[in-house]
Amino acid sequence: MSKFWSPLVRELKPYVPGEQPKMQRLVKLNTNENPYGPSPRVLEVIRQQADDSLRLYPDPESERLRGVIGDYYGVSPEQVFVGNGSDEVLAHIFQGLLKQDRPILFPDITYSFYPVYCGLYGVDSRLVPLNEDFGINPEDYRVPNGGVIFPNPNAPTGRFLPLDDVEQIVAGNPDSVVVVDEAYVDFGGDSAIALVDRYPNLLVTQTLSKARSLAGLRVGFAVGHRDLVEALNRVKNSFNSYPLDRLAQAGAVAAFEDQTWFEHTRKQVIAERERVTSALEKMGFEVLPSAANFIFCQHGSVSGDTLAARLRERGIIVRHFDKPRIDNFLRITIGTDGQNDELLWALGELTG
Amino acid sequence: MSKFWSPLVRELKPYVPGEQPKMQRLVKLNTNENPYGPSPRVLEVIRQQADDSLRLYPDPESERLRGVIGDYYGVSPEQVFVGNGSDEVLAHIFQGLLKQDRPILFPDITYSFYPVYCGLYGVDSRLVPLNEDFGINPEDYRVPNGGVIFPNPNAPTGRFLPLDDVEQIVAGNPDSVVVVDEAYVDFGGDSAIALVDRYPNLLVTQTLSKARSLAGLRVGFAVGHRDLVEALNRVKNSFNSYPLDRLAQAGAVAAFEDQTWFEHTRKQVIAERERVTSALEKMGFEVLPSAANFIFCQHGSVSGDTLAARLRERGIIVRHFDKPRIDNFLRITIGTDGQNDELLWALGELTG
Repeated sequence: MSKFWSPLVRELKPYVPGEQPKMQRLVKLNTNENPYGPSPRVLEVIRQQADDSLRLYPDPESERLRGVIGDYYGVSPEQVFVGNGSDEVLAHIFQGLLKQDRPILFPDITYSFYPVYCGLYGVDSRLVPLNEDFGINPEDYRVPNGGVIFPNPNAPTGRFLPLDDVEQIVAGNPDSVVVVDEAYVDFGGDSAIALVDRYPNLLVTQTLSKARSLAGLRVGFAVGHRDLVEALNRVKNSFNSYPLDRLAQAGAVAAFEDQTWFEHTRKQVIAERERVTSALEKMGFEVLPSAANFIFCQHGSVSGDTLAARLRERGIIVRHFDKPRIDNFLRITIGTDGQNDELLWALGELTG
Repeated sequence: MSKFWSPLVRELKPYVPGEQPKMQRLVKLNTNENPYGPSPRVLEVIRQQADDSLRLYPDPESERLRGVIGDYYGVSPEQVFVGNGSDEVLAHIFQGLLKQDRPILFPDITYSFYPVYCGLYGVDSRLVPLNEDFGINPEDYRVPNGGVIFPNPNAPTGRFLPLDDVEQIVAGNPDSVVVVDEAYVDFGGDSAIALVDRYPNLLVTQTLSKARSLAGLRVGFAVGHRDLVEALNRVKNSFNSYPLDRLAQAGAVAAFEDQTWFEHTRKQVIAERERVTSALEKMGFEVLPSAANFIFCQHGSVSGDTLAARLRERGIIVRHFDKPRIDNFLRITIGTDGQNDELLWALGELTG
């Protein structure tokens, strides 16, 4: 604490990201990165783009990238906003759309950055408990609110809310912005982007960090009605004119252009998720149905924090949240076949 | 305007960056980019780093880069904060350090993003007029305030305030944070980083976009007392855990490691600035003394907006600010020898 801090900073409770250990030879299954690398075309384009043009500012509007994303989802570029990872996009959404007089709603178990954004921008919020199966009940969101946000698939549960239920929430809140945070949607869900042309209050966010395997490049985006996107542009242009560097813009374009790589790798992740799920169930784990690149599971007799600690001793890092309702669970990222085998072997020993 | 916008967004007046035209074959002297490319070692490192590791999140703390910058300036890594361009760093400074009960102070003629940040974070401000020669008078900053910020060299004037005068402002405001924004300092000024260990209220920002020729990579930083840096870390970790991508971190490290390239190119820019200044003075221009990679000048008989428009017809883009006191001036980036020759030839015709 320092007398120079703004009153805001004194009260902030920053987000704690998953650990990024510097050790080699870890089986790192704690931050939901893709076990497969990005498309070789992405790497090729970045290498080509690493030239004297880096002396010049990037396109502040990322027009080409917004065009490619728009084409991919059948919307216009004016309906697409891009930012330095979906975390930056979400921050602008909290400041530009969700900071309203009434409290916003989000699930009690959800992406733990949401309450942090609320603290940063002074947004009031109300937690809506998930049901007993850790699912979202659309009826629970039919109360007066200043906005709604939830991940779909949800994090850290991995559960996917069917699009009909998403639509029910959106249609039931015509005077509020409803944000669907689809960081993991490509691993098994249908995107609500299909609904944006029918609902001017719907905004959908996605990232290139997960299914497109570019966590290291920092690109996220939002799709919705152009009025919602315009609010984000106004915040962005009052914060940082050039959020995406030249390499990130070029690499992200190439990622959307290599559909074959995308389909191949995400299907591998999905197949491995199903294999790991079956194996864990045989060991006595309850595994929530996952539409993401991770699973959320608890064992019948060995506690989550014990398992996380024992796995770490063996060089396997998973995520454990010391929070009500979920403190017995582990969130485990789906790795390569070999990593998953190591995980299963270790868990077999620890629970057998 | 949309009913979904937060009350804040309705009032925002976003920053307007210098144009980034898509046309080829322009002499682009409007956004103070470096005419020389980045160090070849930077490009090589980026190409090497464009590999499967992009699937992984970057180091959220940019430890290696902060260490290299700390070594360069003789401070500890805990005194260094890095961000996605110095614009993002400045934004966090406004929110985390300059948002206080009293209004902050900055010059009437200055970087035009400062009032935009004030709008974004609800920071009160008071303009302090530059003197008749467009210089900063340190005495003017001895009034109660919630903070002080000014660029040094100033933008768009290019004038440098000697370090003794900077120190006078810092020492005269022991209860306020004083931010010295040194985007252009490597083109002719001494950095106030030399003072940070004596003044816990001094924060200095810099960028790799100018003298290190990496505008396209988006890296900026701040150096000061660790308590000030801690405030910025708290904001950053409540906004976006991973502001610098892997390529930006690696490229920025390499830029600091190639001192030879840095010295060579910045000296070329300085030499060209002196040549262009002399030539313009012979044409009847008043040129403010510049310590930056641009000059700020007005002609005795042809107005600034006329000159800007006529230059544009010839494919030469410079910046003209339609603002009180400076609306007759042009801000002209120093280009390559050849670009500067084209500029001088055109201005000779237009004013001859």
